[in-house]
Amino acid sequence: MAEALAGFRPQRRTPAETVALADALHRVPVAPVTAPHALPGFARSTVDGYAVRAADTYGVSEGLPGYLDVGGAVAMGAEPDVAVGPGTVVSMPTGGMLPPGADAVVMVEYTQEVAPGTIEVVRPVAPGDGVVRADEDAAAGAELVPAGRPLRAQDLGMLAAAGVTSVAVHARPRVTILSTGDEVVPPGTAVLRPGQVRDATAAALAALVTESGAEPAGGGIVPDDAGLLETALRAALAGSDLIVISAGSSVGARDETAAAVGRLGPPGIWCHGLAIRPGKPTLLAECAGVPVIGLPGNPRSALVIFRLIGMPLVRRVGGCTAPPAEPVTRARLDRDLASAAGRLDVVQVRVAGGVASPVFGLSALLSVLTAADGYVIVPEEATGLDAGTEVDVSLYR
Amino acid sequence: MAEALAGFRPQRRTPAETVALADALHRVPVAPVTAPHALPGFARSTVDGYAVRAADTYGVSEGLPGYLDVGGAVAMGAEPDVAVGPGTVVSMPTGGMLPPGADAVVMVEYTQEVAPGTIEVVRPVAPGDGVVRADEDAAAGAELVPAGRPLRAQDLGMLAAAGVTSVAVHARPRVTILSTGDEVVPPGTAVLRPGQVRDATAAALAALVTESGAEPAGGGIVPDDAGLLETALRAALAGSDLIVISAGSSVGARDETAAAVGRLGPPGIWCHGLAIRPGKPTLLAECAGVPVIGLPGNPRSALVIFRLIGMPLVRRVGGCTAPPAEPVTRARLDRDLASAAGRLDVVQVRVAGGVASPVFGLSALLSVLTAADGYVIVPEEATGLDAGTEVDVSLYR
Repeated sequence: MAEALAGFRPQRRTPAETVALADALHRVPVAPVTAPHALPGFARSTVDGYAVRAADTYGVSEGLPGYLDVGGAVAMGAEPDVAVGPGTVVSMPTGGMLPPGADAVVMVEYTQEVAPGTIEVVRPVAPGDGVVRADEDAAAGAELVPAGRPLRAQDLGMLAAAGVTSVAVHARPRVTILSTGDEVVPPGTAVLRPGQVRDATAAALAALVTESGAEPAGGGIVPDDAGLLETALRAALAGSDLIVISAGSSVGARDETAAAVGRLGPPGIWCHGLAIRPGKPTLLAECAGVPVIGLPGNPRSALVIFRLIGMPLVRRVGGCTAPPAEPVTRARLDRDLASAAGRLDVVQVRVAGGVASPVFGLSALLSVLTAADGYVIVPEEATGLDAGTEVDVSLYR
Repeated sequence: MAEALAGFRPQRRTPAETVALADALHRVPVAPVTAPHALPGFARSTVDGYAVRAADTYGVSEGLPGYLDVGGAVAMGAEPDVAVGPGTVVSMPTGGMLPPGADAVVMVEYTQEVAPGTIEVVRPVAPGDGVVRADEDAAAGAELVPAGRPLRAQDLGMLAAAGVTSVAVHARPRVTILSTGDEVVPPGTAVLRPGQVRDATAAALAALVTESGAEPAGGGIVPDDAGLLETALRAALAGSDLIVISAGSSVGARDETAAAVGRLGPPGIWCHGLAIRPGKPTLLAECAGVPVIGLPGNPRSALVIFRLIGMPLVRRVGGCTAPPAEPVTRARLDRDLASAAGRLDVVQVRVAGGVASPVFGLSALLSVLTAADGYVIVPEEATGLDAGTEVDVSLYR
């Protein structure tokens, strides 16, 4: 499993496109964005108070206040029209621009107006106190956001502060989702004929594709026919950055999927079959530059595999080198989990009060997934986990 | 802090709207959705093999195989046109509909065709083996998804399987974001005049609003003028489910914001000032049925507070009673954190290799947030945390 995944590294990356800041949340910059000028761009007060020359406050105390003349006031958002000279101060609002001559701001709490135009100061300040330097948030040319990491809320704030109103980001990968199976009909089918089932996997996969920062495209439902599947795959190749096939569940259907993928183009199939449960019949391929994932036939296995293998791959194709953290919680298993050595097991669990309770059921059952809060991985090298073991539960969201 | 938040429970909830399944990811159902019929709806095979009467396999073994006649084959997606009688089997693909008369499916691996139309079976099966019951994924009327929990990928899959192609969900809360301050100009302002700063907060808040499942609406920038602010707030009331004000940073501006909010309508201001750092001057109000949050003036404090207090409130207004899990990691502090008892401190940290390193800096600096991977909360009752303490780090994404 680990070996198969480590080696499967398709090189495809989506091209750059420019988006407005308002549309840039979680988008992936193609290059670092640097500050066009220093931020905040001028020395600002961090407190309400008085801009001073720090030296004029040295030695003052409650018992021995200093007395200084108020030479004027700075207005928010305006250039000061007055300078600070020896023995004088200028009234400052928080965020105001430091006037020439001042090197600190003394908080209003440590001052008192003793006469019109005169204050007493009872605490000394050092140069720089109460002041944000002109380049303290970012120097000109400093990196504001790195390439490859999806933009977070605060990153957008920083870009806005720098006047960067659009960003070059990787285009969202276009992921075509193909369902196969003679028994599969669209979810909108009101009445099923005996033996038919609605396509549950495509809707859920589309959601996971969206969560990975990509755009799902419905490739429709293809009957169990190698020729039709090959035609559908070839049609999808041109417009897709990645193709996902939720293959028929029977051995024959799986073999046909592999055959169709194998004919698509070089380098072709990377592996077919993974030491994982559920999800053994997973197929990984790269055809004509497009990564192709063949998922197991039943919806539950398909979703488990796409979450573990598909989502990281989609993110990588979308230029993401620092995937966002996923929610994980520590919990204690309330029963033994058996596993074969050399096989990775994905076990669905409910979590309550720090206890993880496995949800068992046939791998054909989607209800096992909807009943679960998350999943536990029993690693390949383990032969199981004992009840009471503390495990990491990856939580669904 | 805890007291203030526990008591502030605006009752506003957004109304229901119906959305297609393809648009329903992370949307919040207004009511549980139940299965219109049993799922999968018919007994299905979980393996490739032969549908049998289990009794016909009792006692068979490798040494003493049972011999059964193949009466036909079930095709995927079709009603079986043949029944299973005593001594006969029907060939089954995985997922095929169980034919009448059969109560189990024996895996193909435990059979062998010994003559045309005859197989030998070397392992017995019990009734139900190799079969999913008609109502095993969901009984008719069973709850498929609960109200109040944002829909996850597998929930959409389950709804699709049940033929539910649209869902009644809470409308996304419309959150108006108002910025105030004479010094604040739009991010698109190419050249700043001395003393001006671009509006960093609104862009970042809009992102957090989006992350909360709501729709941000730009309320624009209002100068430090109580009358203008009141006018802007009144204009926003009608079209908003929640209003966020990133207030001016000076004491005067904060007082004016409180005064303007106080005049908006009953029940009015709930609290003004919280025992939290950064974020002390936070204002919580409810005016004419609309929750109003007044955030601290500097962008970093505003974002910290909105994440802690605003996002849960936005989710609640949007009907969410089971918020999605957020990523948290355990890490060891690499230095002491001081805090006053009775005050909650939010400390930005970088995390690497299980070690959390506080990022210090003036609360006016947005770069402290962009440099951080997450934050640590020093609870109200603590007077600080010692270096080496294991803490929960909430991770940004």
